[in-house]
Amino acid sequence: MFPKYDVIVVGAGHAGCEAASAAATMGSKVLLATMNMQTIAQMSCNPAMGGVAKGQIVREIDALGGQSGIISDRSMIQFRMLNRSKGPAMWSPRCQSDRMLFAQLWRQTLEDNPNVDFWQETITGLKIEGGTVTGVVTSLGITIEAKTVVLTNGTFLNGIIHIGEKNFGGGRAGERAAKGITEQLVKLGFEAGRMKTGTPPRLDGRSLNYALMEEQLGDEHPAKFSYTNTPHLTKQRSCWITYTNESVHEILRAGFEKSPMFTGRIQGIGPRYCPSVEDKINRFADKDRHQIFVEPEGWDTVEVYVNGFSTSLPEDVQYQALRKIPGFENAKMFRPGYAIEYDYFPPTQLTSTLETSLVKNLFFAGQINGTTGYEEAAGQGLIAGINAHQNAHEKSPFTLQRSEAYIGVLIDDLINKGTEEPYRMFTSRAEYRTLLRQDNADIRLTPKGLELGLASEERRKNLEEKTAATTKIVTMLQKEKVAPEQVNSRLEQFGLSQIREKTSLEQLLKRPQLGIEELAKLDENFASFISGFSDESREHAEIEVKYASYIEKEKLMVGKMKRMEDHAIPEAFNYHQIPALSIEAKQKLSKLKPSTIGQASRISGVSPADISVLIIHLGR
Amino acid sequence: MFPKYDVIVVGAGHAGCEAASAAATMGSKVLLATMNMQTIAQMSCNPAMGGVAKGQIVREIDALGGQSGIISDRSMIQFRMLNRSKGPAMWSPRCQSDRMLFAQLWRQTLEDNPNVDFWQETITGLKIEGGTVTGVVTSLGITIEAKTVVLTNGTFLNGIIHIGEKNFGGGRAGERAAKGITEQLVKLGFEAGRMKTGTPPRLDGRSLNYALMEEQLGDEHPAKFSYTNTPHLTKQRSCWITYTNESVHEILRAGFEKSPMFTGRIQGIGPRYCPSVEDKINRFADKDRHQIFVEPEGWDTVEVYVNGFSTSLPEDVQYQALRKIPGFENAKMFRPGYAIEYDYFPPTQLTSTLETSLVKNLFFAGQINGTTGYEEAAGQGLIAGINAHQNAHEKSPFTLQRSEAYIGVLIDDLINKGTEEPYRMFTSRAEYRTLLRQDNADIRLTPKGLELGLASEERRKNLEEKTAATTKIVTMLQKEKVAPEQVNSRLEQFGLSQIREKTSLEQLLKRPQLGIEELAKLDENFASFISGFSDESREHAEIEVKYASYIEKEKLMVGKMKRMEDHAIPEAFNYHQIPALSIEAKQKLSKLKPSTIGQASRISGVSPADISVLIIHLGR
Ligand SMILES: Cc1cc2nc3c(=O)[nH]c(=O)nc-3n(C[C@H](O)[C@H](O)[C@H](O)COP(=O)(O)OP(=O)(O)OC[C@H]3O[C@@H](n4cnc5c(N)ncnc54)[C@H](O)[C@@H]3O)c2cc1C
Ligand SMILES: Cc1cc2nc3c(=O)[nH]c(=O)nc-3n(C[C@H](O)[C@H](O)[C@H](O)COP(=O)(O)OP(=O)(O)OC[C@H]3O[C@@H](n4cnc5c(N)ncnc54)[C@H](O)[C@@H]3O)c2cc1C
Repeated sequence: MFPKYDVIVVGAGHAGCEAASAAATMGSKVLLATMNMQTIAQMSCNPAMGGVAKGQIVREIDALGGQSGIISDRSMIQFRMLNRSKGPAMWSPRCQSDRMLFAQLWRQTLEDNPNVDFWQETITGLKIEGGTVTGVVTSLGITIEAKTVVLTNGTFLNGIIHIGEKNFGGGRAGERAAKGITEQLVKLGFEAGRMKTGTPPRLDGRSLNYALMEEQLGDEHPAKFSYTNTPHLTKQRSCWITYTNESVHEILRAGFEKSPMFTGRIQGIGPRYCPSVEDKINRFADKDRHQIFVEPEGWDTVEVYVNGFSTSLPEDVQYQALRKIPGFENAKMFRPGYAIEYDYFPPTQLTSTLETSLVKNLFFAGQINGTTGYEEAAGQGLIAGINAHQNAHEKSPFTLQRSEAYIGVLIDDLINKGTEEPYRMFTSRAEYRTLLRQDNADIRLTPKGLELGLASEERRKNLEEKTAATTKIVTMLQKEKVAPEQVNSRLEQFGLSQIREKTSLEQLLKRPQLGIEELAKLDENFASFISGFSDESREHAEIEVKYASYIEKEKLMVGKMKRMEDHAIPEAFNYHQIPALSIEAKQKLSKLKPSTIGQASRISGVSPADISVLIIHLGR
Repeated sequence: MFPKYDVIVVGAGHAGCEAASAAATMGSKVLLATMNMQTIAQMSCNPAMGGVAKGQIVREIDALGGQSGIISDRSMIQFRMLNRSKGPAMWSPRCQSDRMLFAQLWRQTLEDNPNVDFWQETITGLKIEGGTVTGVVTSLGITIEAKTVVLTNGTFLNGIIHIGEKNFGGGRAGERAAKGITEQLVKLGFEAGRMKTGTPPRLDGRSLNYALMEEQLGDEHPAKFSYTNTPHLTKQRSCWITYTNESVHEILRAGFEKSPMFTGRIQGIGPRYCPSVEDKINRFADKDRHQIFVEPEGWDTVEVYVNGFSTSLPEDVQYQALRKIPGFENAKMFRPGYAIEYDYFPPTQLTSTLETSLVKNLFFAGQINGTTGYEEAAGQGLIAGINAHQNAHEKSPFTLQRSEAYIGVLIDDLINKGTEEPYRMFTSRAEYRTLLRQDNADIRLTPKGLELGLASEERRKNLEEKTAATTKIVTMLQKEKVAPEQVNSRLEQFGLSQIREKTSLEQLLKRPQLGIEELAKLDENFASFISGFSDESREHAEIEVKYASYIEKEKLMVGKMKRMEDHAIPEAFNYHQIPALSIEAKQKLSKLKPSTIGQASRISGVSPADISVLIIHLGR
C-alpha cells in the first residue's frame, strides 16, 4: 500500500513538521504519519513563538532553511524584540501568533512540498531488524517501510491529563494518548522516564475589563523572524498585563490539598522555568504578586490565553482565583488549565545527530527528548530531519557546534548532560552568546543550509546582499572621520564628552551612548550614505563594530576550546584502565561514550581534573 | 462557577451551532459545551452543503434567520443549482465547501454573538429534577444549571469506528467517543438504538491524473444560499468525475469476508441512500460501474474527498481497489475510509418542538435523532434552539407545518413515523413540493423568523424588496399584451406555435419553452422594464406565473388537509375505548399520543379507515 520511504516522521507537532519539511526539501521521500491531520502544527500551549533564547533558535532554524520563522512571520499578530535595552546578545525576537493560522500555514507548507506524503493514523510500534529501524507499525496493523524513522510524539506517549483530583488519558485536552511505542522501546533496552507540564485556562476576552490592565503594545517598527522576504506586520494586536494578589494566592493555597502536584498524584517532573502558578506561590511565598500576561489567540477570536497562570488545581479553584485578579472580576472561562504527564526518553541515549545509540536510523526529536517549548522542538526536528535524510542517502552527518548555534548548545547539553526536568533554552546555557546573536544567524548558518541543499536561493541572495552591505557600512565607518569642531557641540547636546582630534565614526560608535542613528546626526555625509541601507544591515554592522572586542574574545575562546573539543576518543576506549579517573567519571564516561574530549568535558560528574587526566592519557 | 443559563447546548456540530446561535440571537443566555473548541462545526464527512432537498433546507434555515446559509456562502469554493432541467420544485442549490474555512467562520459567528458562552469539556450526564432537566454534568463533575438543555451529540455517543476487522472507540477519526448520556437516559426510560454511517478515504490530489476524468465546473452564474447580501462567488474550483469498474468491484468483493458489515460485527443500521461502495456492488450486482465524484477539500489544500466510495473494508482493500479507478492509478491515501456505529434515540420520543416527551425542557437535535446529513442536523438544531429559548422564556412553542417547510416535513416524519435507518431528506417525502421551493423559502419563512426575533432587519428589507419587485413583474406580465404581427415571426424562429390574437405575456409565459428571457426578446417594452430587476426576483416571478396552476392546486390540498390536520385530539384521549380501531392503531396511537388528526394520519400502521373512525368519534 505504501512505497518504501526514505524518512517516516511520526507526529506532526513542531518537531515533526520541521523534520518532514527538511528531509523532503533536501530530496527525501517522506511520510508524515500523524494521529489527526486536522491538528497538524497545533500549538499545545501559548500562542506565541520566540522569546529569550528561543527567538534566537527560530532565527537559526530559519537561517538553515527551516520553516518555523516564515510561518511565524505570516501568522503573527504582534511582534516585540525583547531585551532591547540590554546588549545585543540578549536581544530576542518574540511574537504572538494566530493559533489557527499558524497551524493552517504549516499544513499548507507541507502540502506544497511534493516530497511529503501524509498518513492519518496512530503509530503503535516500530519495525526493527538487526538493530536497525526499517519502518513503523500502525494501529490498524499496517507496516510502512522506511530507511529512517523520526519519532516526535510530543506529550502523547501514555499521556495523562490532570485537573484537581480527576485524571484521564490524553495527549492534549480533547485528544487521545498514544500507546505502544514506549513499551516496545523499553523492551529493546531504552530507558524511559516521566515528565509533566501544564497549561493555563483560556478565557473569554469579552468578559475582561481591559481598563484595569496595562496595555502592552507591539514594537513600533516590528522586525520579524525570517531572513527571507516575508512581510513586516502593519497592524498589531495588543497584549495586556495584570497581576495576582494575596486574595488570589489565598484561594489557590486553599486548593492545594486537591492539587495533583502536592498530593503526589503527579510523579513526573515539571519545568522549573515554566512553573505553575501554584508552584510559584509555594516556592516564592514572600512574593505578594505575580505578573499575568493576557494574550489574544488570534486576529479575530475572542479567546485569550492567561500566560503566567498555568495550573492543575480543580477548575472551580482556578475560576475563583482568577476572578480576584484585577480586570478578571467577571471573567468567563472557555477551557480550564490542566497538567499533563507523559513519557520521555533520557536524551543521553542519543548521538549528536539525534539518532539513538541503540537503534540505527531511528531519530528522536522534540518533547520526547525531555525538552519543553515549540522552538526547542522545532530546532531538534530540523536537525533530526536533516540527518535522517543524510543517513537515508549515505551522506555524512550534520551537527552544529556550541559555538555555532543555540541549537548546537541544546543538542550538546541534551546528549551529554541529559536532563532531569523539562529542558528549556536560556541564553545563560551558551558560552558564546555574543557570537550566537539573533542578527547574525544567517551569517552563521545559511552557508551550511545552502551546502546541505536545504536553504533556498532567495536566502543566498539575501545573505550576499546583507554581507556586502555590512562590509560597506563597516568600511565607511572606518574611513569616515569627523573633526572636533564638526561634532563637539552636538556631542555636548547628547551629554557626551567631546573629542580632541579627528576621530573615525568607528571609534565613536564604540561609545555605548552612540548608535548609527546618532552618528547620522553628527555627520551629514554619513547620514546620506547610510540612508540607502536596510534596518537589518545597519543593525548588524553596528553590533559588529560596537561589540568587536567581545566578539574577538569569544572567537579566541572558541578556537582554544575547539582544539581540545575536537580531540577524538576512540569508541571502544576503556575508561576503567585509567586509575586516576574518579569512579563517577569512569561510570559516566563508559556509559555515555563521548566521542570527543569536548563532549566528555560537559558530562555532569566529569570534573576538569578528570579531563586533564584523560587528555594526558590520550596523548596530548 | 457558572451562571444559570437559559439554554445549554451540548455539542458544537451543525445542530449544536444552529441551536446555540438561534437561542442566543433571540436573547437567551446560552452555553455551548463541546468536547474540543478546536473542532467546532467540523464537517465529519463530505465538504459540501446542500443538494437535492437538502439545499432547500439550508435556504429555509437561512430564511428563518439561521447561519448555515451565510456560512456556506462565505466558505464555498463551487456552487451548482442541481436539477435545473427539471421543474423548479426540484431545483436544489449545492456547494463545495472549504472545510477549514467553514469551521472557522462558524466559530467566529458564535464568538461574535454576545449571548454565547463556551465551555470545552465532555458532558457525561444531565441534571434532572422531577421530570424536568435543570442542567448538565461534566466529566470533571461540574454541574452547570440551565432552564433548558439541547443535546446534539451527533455520532459521538458510544461511537465505535470500524475499518476491516479492526474497531476502536471514537466519535470521529482521531476523536474520542462520549459515554454516560445514553446510559442515564436509558435508565430514565428512554429507548436507544444503534445506527451506523460511513465515510470514504481521503486522497492526495497531487497523486491523481485528472486528464482521465471528466471535469465538473461550477455554474456559470453561481447563485447562493442566503437571502442576505452575502457575496457571489467570482472564482470556483472544479470537481471531477470518474467511475468504478469490474476490476474495482472484484477487489472489493474479495475483501467482503473482512468487512465489518458483512461479517455481522456492525449491528447498527446504515443509511440506505448513502450506501457504502461495498453495499452498492452487493445490492446492484448487475451494475458494472458506479460514479465517483472527486471533490477538493478547500481553496488551497491538496486533500480530496472521494464521494461515492464510502467504505469500511480493510484499508489495503480500499487502496488496491482505488488504484483500479481511472485517474487513480497512482493515488496516495491520506486517511482511510471507515464506518462508525453510534447510539441514537428513536425520535418518536419527541414532540414537534423536539422536546422529549419524557423529560421537560430537554431537546434533542441532529444525528442523535436518527437522521443523517449536516442540513437535516442544522434544521433540527434551529428548531430546537428556538423552542429551548421559547420554553426558557415561557413563550409559545414554534413549529412548522409540512406545507410550510421541508424542516416541517422532517420533524413531522421523525416524531410520528420514527425511523429504522438513518433518515435523510428527499423531495419525495414532501407532499407539497411545488410550495416548498428553494426560491421562495424567504417568502414562506422570513416573516416567521422576524416575528420570533430571530431574523435580522436586513432580511425584512430584502424580503420587502423582493416581494415588491415580484408583484411589479407579475402585474406587468398580466398587463402587457403582444399582438400576433409583433411576435409571430419570432415565435416561429423559436419553433413555437403562433398566436391568433393579442395575448398577455403572462399567457405566453405558461408555455414550457418560454421564460422571462425569451419574453424580453419578443417585446422591447418588457425588455427595458425587466432589465432593472434582480435575477432572484425574475426567477421567482417567472415560477409563480408559470406554475400558478400547480401552486393553486397544492394550496387547495393544504387547506383541505389543514382543516383536518389541526383538529385536536385531547392528550388523555383513550383509544382503547373505540372498538372499531384496529389493534395496531390503538397501540401506536396510545404510545405516540398524536396531538392532531393530521399527526395521527401519518403514523405508520394507522390506516385511512382508522382515521375515519377517529374523526367520527371526535365529533366531526
Ligand atoms: C498542556 C501542555 C502544556 C505545555 N506548556 C508548555 C509551557 O508552559 N512552556 C513550554 O515551553 N512548552 C509547553 N508545552 C510544550 C510544547 O507544547 C511542546 O514542547 C511542543 O509542542 C513539543 O513539540 P513536539 O513536536 O515535540 O510535540 P507536539 O507538539 O506535542 O506534537 C506531537 C505530535 O505527534 C502526534 N503523535 C503523537 N504520538 C503519535 C503516534 N503514536 N502516532 C501518530 N501521531 C502521534 C500528535 O498528534 C502531535 O501531532 C506544553 C504542552 C502541553 C501539551
Ligand atoms: C464517519 C461519518 C460519516 C458520515 N457520512 C455521512 C454521509 O455519507 N452522508 C451524510 O449525509 N451524513 C454523513 N455523516 C453524518 C453527518 O456528519 C452528520 O449528520 C452531521 O454532522 C450531524 O450533525 P450533528 O450536529 O448532529 O453532530 P456532529 O456533527 O457529529 O457534532 C457533534 C458535536 O457534539 C460534540 N459532542 C458529542 N458528544 C459530546 C459530549 N458528551 N460532550 C460535549 N460535546 C459532545 C462533538 O464534539 C461534536 O462537536 C457522517 C458522519 C460521520 C462521523
